[in-house]
Parts: sequence; C-alpha cells; structure tokens
Amino acid sequence: MTSEMMELGHRARAAAKSLAAATTDAKDAALHAMATHIRAASKAILTANAKDLEGAKSKELKSSFVDRLTLTPARVEAMAAGLEDIAVLKDPVGRVTEKWTRPNGLQISRISVPIGVIGIVFESRPNVTADAGGLCVKSGNAAILRGGTDGFHTSQLITKCLQAGLKDAGLNPNAIQMVQTADRTAVGEMLAGLGGTIDLIVPRGGKSLVARVQSEARVPVFSHLEGICHVYVDKAAELEMAKAIVLNSKMRRTGVCGSAETILIDGAKISNLAPIISVLINAGCEVRGDAGTMAANAAVKPATEEDWSTEYLDSIVSMRVVDGVNGAINHITKYGSQHTDAIVTEDQATADHFLKELDSAIVLHNASTQFADGGEFGFGAEIGIATGKLHARGPVGVEQLTTFKYQIRGSGQIRPE
Amino acid sequence: MTSEMMELGHRARAAAKSLAAATTDAKDAALHAMATHIRAASKAILTANAKDLEGAKSKELKSSFVDRLTLTPARVEAMAAGLEDIAVLKDPVGRVTEKWTRPNGLQISRISVPIGVIGIVFESRPNVTADAGGLCVKSGNAAILRGGTDGFHTSQLITKCLQAGLKDAGLNPNAIQMVQTADRTAVGEMLAGLGGTIDLIVPRGGKSLVARVQSEARVPVFSHLEGICHVYVDKAAELEMAKAIVLNSKMRRTGVCGSAETILIDGAKISNLAPIISVLINAGCEVRGDAGTMAANAAVKPATEEDWSTEYLDSIVSMRVVDGVNGAINHITKYGSQHTDAIVTEDQATADHFLKELDSAIVLHNASTQFADGGEFGFGAEIGIATGKLHARGPVGVEQLTTFKYQIRGSGQIRPE
Repeated sequence: MTSEMMELGHRARAAAKSLAAATTDAKDAALHAMATHIRAASKAILTANAKDLEGAKSKELKSSFVDRLTLTPARVEAMAAGLEDIAVLKDPVGRVTEKWTRPNGLQISRISVPIGVIGIVFESRPNVTADAGGLCVKSGNAAILRGGTDGFHTSQLITKCLQAGLKDAGLNPNAIQMVQTADRTAVGEMLAGLGGTIDLIVPRGGKSLVARVQSEARVPVFSHLEGICHVYVDKAAELEMAKAIVLNSKMRRTGVCGSAETILIDGAKISNLAPIISVLINAGCEVRGDAGTMAANAAVKPATEEDWSTEYLDSIVSMRVVDGVNGAINHITKYGSQHTDAIVTEDQATADHFLKELDSAIVLHNASTQFADGGEFGFGAEIGIATGKLHARGPVGVEQLTTFKYQIRGSGQIRPE
Repeated sequence: MTSEMMELGHRARAAAKSLAAATTDAKDAALHAMATHIRAASKAILTANAKDLEGAKSKELKSSFVDRLTLTPARVEAMAAGLEDIAVLKDPVGRVTEKWTRPNGLQISRISVPIGVIGIVFESRPNVTADAGGLCVKSGNAAILRGGTDGFHTSQLITKCLQAGLKDAGLNPNAIQMVQTADRTAVGEMLAGLGGTIDLIVPRGGKSLVARVQSEARVPVFSHLEGICHVYVDKAAELEMAKAIVLNSKMRRTGVCGSAETILIDGAKISNLAPIISVLINAGCEVRGDAGTMAANAAVKPATEEDWSTEYLDSIVSMRVVDGVNGAINHITKYGSQHTDAIVTEDQATADHFLKELDSAIVLHNASTQFADGGEFGFGAEIGIATGKLHARGPVGVEQLTTFKYQIRGSGQIRPE
C-alpha cells in the first residue's frame, strides 16, 4: 500500500475516534457551516465543474453520465440545503435501543454507536461528496471518499468546503477526506480495508463498480445490486388504482432503483391487461410482453427470457400474465433482485400472503414501488438502498450508519461455575 | 464448483424457503424430536465418536483438540438438552420491531425474517453440529454445516438425528445438511457463497480458520476474532470487589473468549497491585508484568510487547500499571480486540467515561468479563460472540440470526413528482 493511502487511513481512524465523542450540537453546527461554505464557494465550484466537464466531453462519455456530473447553481444550492436537512435529523448516536436487567442484577443496555470509518466509492456524481460526507458526520463516522476521476476537481472543492465546516465547529477536518490519487489501485486498497482502518465500504455506482466491490472487498459492504422491482396486479385489484400505481411505479422516474421493471397481471382477470398496457404506452413507455400480453395490444413487442431479469432504468417495461398471487411470487423469486415489490389488490388475505412470502427488502400493498426511498420512509437523507440482507436492508439513512455496543452495569457480580 | 456442492446449495435454498414459512409449533416440535433422536442414538453416536478418536489419535493431535472432539454419555445428553433449551426460546421470526405511519397514510412495519441459508464452518467439535443446526432451525434458516474432518463420523450421525427430527415435524430435512466431502476446496466453495445459495458464513474455530475465512469470504461473515479482554482496576475501586472480579474474569474458565488476558492497575493506587497479584498467583496463574508489576511481587515474570496482544486462553495473565482511566483506555484501544472490557471502580463518572469511550462490543462496570456469553445475556443458546461491528456484535443468539424486511400497507398511494 502507498504510504499516502496508509496515512489517510490513520488520519480517518483518529478523526473517527474524536467524532464519535462529538456532541450533537457540534455535529449540527458543522453541517450548517458546510452549507454556508458551499454557498459561498458556489462560483468556484461551478468553475471546477466546468473544468471537469471539459475533460469529460473530450472522452465522448454518455449523456446520462455527463448529466450526473454536471452542476448548476440550483444543484449547488440543493447540496447546501441537503446538508441543512441532515442537521435537523435526530442524532442517531447514543440511543438506548434496548435495556433489561438480569436476575443477578446486571443491567444491560444496548447503545447505538458510530461504525467508525466508512469508505464511499462512487462514480462521477459530485453531489454524492456532500451527501455522503454529511451523513457520515451526522452519524459520528469518518468518511473516506473516492469519487470518479472525471469529477475530481468538483469533488475536491466540495470536500474543502466540508472540511472548512468541520473546522468552524471545532471538529477534526479529517473526518471527511477525499482520496487524492486518480490511480485505480487506491480503490483496491480501500476494498482491502486500508490496513484495518476502514470498517465498511459503501459503493454508489453502476454494475461494474458493484461487481468489483463484490469480488474484491475484504471488509463489510452495503451492497446495492439492481432494483428489478415488480408490480403484481391481482384479480381483486381495483382497476383505476392499479393503473395509477403501475404508471407511477414505472414512469414517475425511470432512472431510480425503485422504478418497476416488470408488471405481472393475474390471468384470472385478463380484462385488466388492455387498459394497463394502454396507460403505459400512452405515457411513452415501450411494453415487452409474453404471448398473453401481446394478444391484448398489437403495440406490445415480444419479451425474451432476458427481459425478465433486466433493469431497464428507462421507459421500457416487461409484462407477463401469471397464475394468481403464487404465480407472481414464483416469478419474482426467480427473476427479482429482492429490492422492492408491490401487489395491487382489494383482497386482504392475498395481500398478506404476498407481503409475507416474498423475501424482498421492501414489499408494498396498494402503493407505488417508487416509495422505496429513505426520505419517503421518514429517514431523511439516504446514502442508497441496501440490497444485502445484513445490518442495513432497504434505505440507508443515518440510523443505518450506526452500530451498537452493550454496556453492562453491575455491583461486583462474578460468574458462577 | 462440484455439482455435488451445487446441489447441496440448491437443496438448502429450497429448504430455507419452506422453513421461513414454518410455524413456531412445527419448529419447536422438530427441536424436541431432534433431542429424542439424539438420545435414542446415543450409543451409535459414541461408537462413531470412538472411530473418529481412533483416527485422531494416530495423528498425534493436541490433547485440547482431542478433548473437544471427545463425546461422553453426559456430553451427548447435554446436546439433546441444548436442543430442548432452544425449543423453549421465543420465536425470533415475525416480530414487528418498528411500526409507523407516514403523513401520506402509508403504514410501514419492520418485521423480523430469517436470513436464509447459513454456512457454518467449524473445527472438530461434534456438539457444534447440534447447537448450530438447532439455532438455525429455530430462527427459520437452513444450515450447511462443514465440520472438521476428524469429527466426520460423529457429526454425520448427529446430522442424521437432526434431519430425522425435522422430518418427524413435517419440515424439510434439507434445512440441516452436512458437507459430505473431506476435500478442503468445499470450504472455499462455501466461502464464495456456493453459487449464490449461501447468505452468511459463521466460522467457529481458531485463528487459522478465521484467517482463511477473512481472506476468502465473498459473502457476509460473522467473524469471531480473538477475545483480548481487559479488567481495569481504578484507584477508586473497592479492593475486595476488584480481587473477586479479576480472579473470576481470568480464572473461572481460561479457555473461553471472554476470559481476561490483561489486568490494568491504576498507578494512582499502587497498593492495590500486590493483593491482586497474590490472588492470581495463589489460584495458579502465571503473571507477566511491566516493571511496576514486577516490583510488587518477585514471582511476576517480565512481559514482552507481544504479551499485550496475546490471547493466552490459559492460566497466564499480563499486568500493567497505567495512568488512570485514560491510560487504561489508551492501552485497550491499542492492544485490545474490541471484544469485552471491564472497569472496577466506585466512581460513577469514571465508569461512565470508560463505558462511553471504549469501542468494544461489551463494556462492563463492576462485573466479570466472563459474563460475555449469550446465556448470561438472556439470549439462550449462542452460536458464538461476534467481534465484527455490523449486524451482530457480541453474543449471537437466535435473534441475531434473523434480519428484517419492510412491509408497507397503502390505499393506492402514488409518489408525487
């Protein structure tokens, strides 16, 4: 490992120790100060961003990539406001989540504590710098940020604003550090735990980044796999509600992980098929279906086997006729990604069965899959949606960035043989 | 991967699905039936164990290793009784751990669910077969067991008893499977997740096993690193209590991970040193100390730097004079393993400082470190003590073998722009 990376890790570890002991007031003051520094540096941040964009354009990158990299005055303001939103959240550290007394008089408390040092590896989205940094500080953790090299100058300047905010509040500015080298081996060093200084890796990016993290990480990861989300329209669904939920689940935003990719229609009420296809096609969505779906509307294109496990993140949906709720469960179990799945039905027992049987992070009855979001859960800002099963599952907000310890208070108890 | 291992994984996945839906009564009936089968097969189990011991003896293995491998009629009975103890625990699955309603009317519940398929890799301790299998069934998970090859015949027979119990209760016997090959590559296949069929690895064994798991695992792990546990005797300690807690922490059982390995004495009350050294030496414990400790008793041997980070698991202790509670905290932060650490003091503020500052899974005030145990926490049986920070930290009982999902109930809510 390079000594530069090792030193960065040690600085983060030291900062984590001091941040774990920081008061709520100090952390919140830092978040407000960060927002102030970002607003004050708005012009400089946009200039740095223009420099990054210049470099990116010469590489002929995808327009969606360039869009995510691009900042505007409104987006800079949104970053600052986002930090203030984090400041008003309840401090997730120091909560007594459980407390009990043993027959021998020992009092056991389970207390929430920060995780320590969190490595965040992300693509060229400069706003992640502020979001992730702010969430880590609120939860008492130190952050090591490694953004995509195409956003280097922008992220660099944002990091300086965050560090200035920490300093203003009397906190250790090393609680948010950015990896300075463009060398990709730095990511490998982080995934290996940076000599024991990183406790958790949070990847934020597409499939290739997640795949690299999965195969190389030697420390715990909050993985974010695909969101292959489903809406199942049961025979007992209210049609107007089903149309609204399907449309919203797919089309409100097609690029978010909670957007639906496959619509399953109960074959017992095939008359639901045509109006649901129409509402999607009228909204500009391409529908790819099985034979049953194709029979209902000539505009439906044939779906291939691959479609059932494709996260389009676009105005495309796959659609299939299934044999009731169990047909839907079987399809989702086979092709889904255990992210978010919804049922539309007026039959309570069918809904309960669906909600119980499916092993997905989020299961909904009569609501849009696009509610898969930390803000919509009331968590405030989120660092992503975890599709792994352990520790965090679903939206990852400040609470999910804490762990716990047991404090035991006695009066001289020793353990008998 | 061998097709044999792949099939085993697929059978476990199918069994996990059915076990997740099993009733509490069915799971508990299975645990009772397992106990019955183990008692009925007691003689056959002892015969199989004698065969394993024969093989082990020819290898000239350590006596402690042979001891752990050895079953007696009492140990077989203890295994059966252990399964019955698991049966009486509360079902950890299906609990609503949180529930709230959003302003838009969505009702969000957080429900405990099984993790799925748990791979348990352990050394040649046949009783782990029953303990781990029973805990997995109670928590609705399927278990894939891979024990040390020296205990193969014993574990094999115990597994058959467990499967017979599952069958008696109408549950899928593949919920507990044992890897049949002695080939060590099978462990590697498990650590890689067995083609996506294993959700979690729980290693139970010594340093070399844990090191292999750390370096090879591609799925989440409940790691169990060393227990380098400390007792700090503050200047404000009550001496008789300190003597009792130090003695019990070190000597009650020296081979458990919660046994103390280092005693730290506050230099501000150096008169505590001699009586505490005496109580240890009189109990047959070797004391290795720094210069201050050596000055107090001629029988104290010199401690080397290595001693401070050594898990003796034996009647040996290291001892050091430190500069008050912060000296203790610094020592423990540098040399400890974030497992279990205790302070003895009558000063509440000093105790609070110690309990807050130390980032260990378990921190105790005026109680023995040997309380680091799932049974002593009231968790019932445990599968080990987790020293990792995420999901499970400290004793791992049936509750820690569950995860959660969010169930959301709506009335047609769609998400606004």
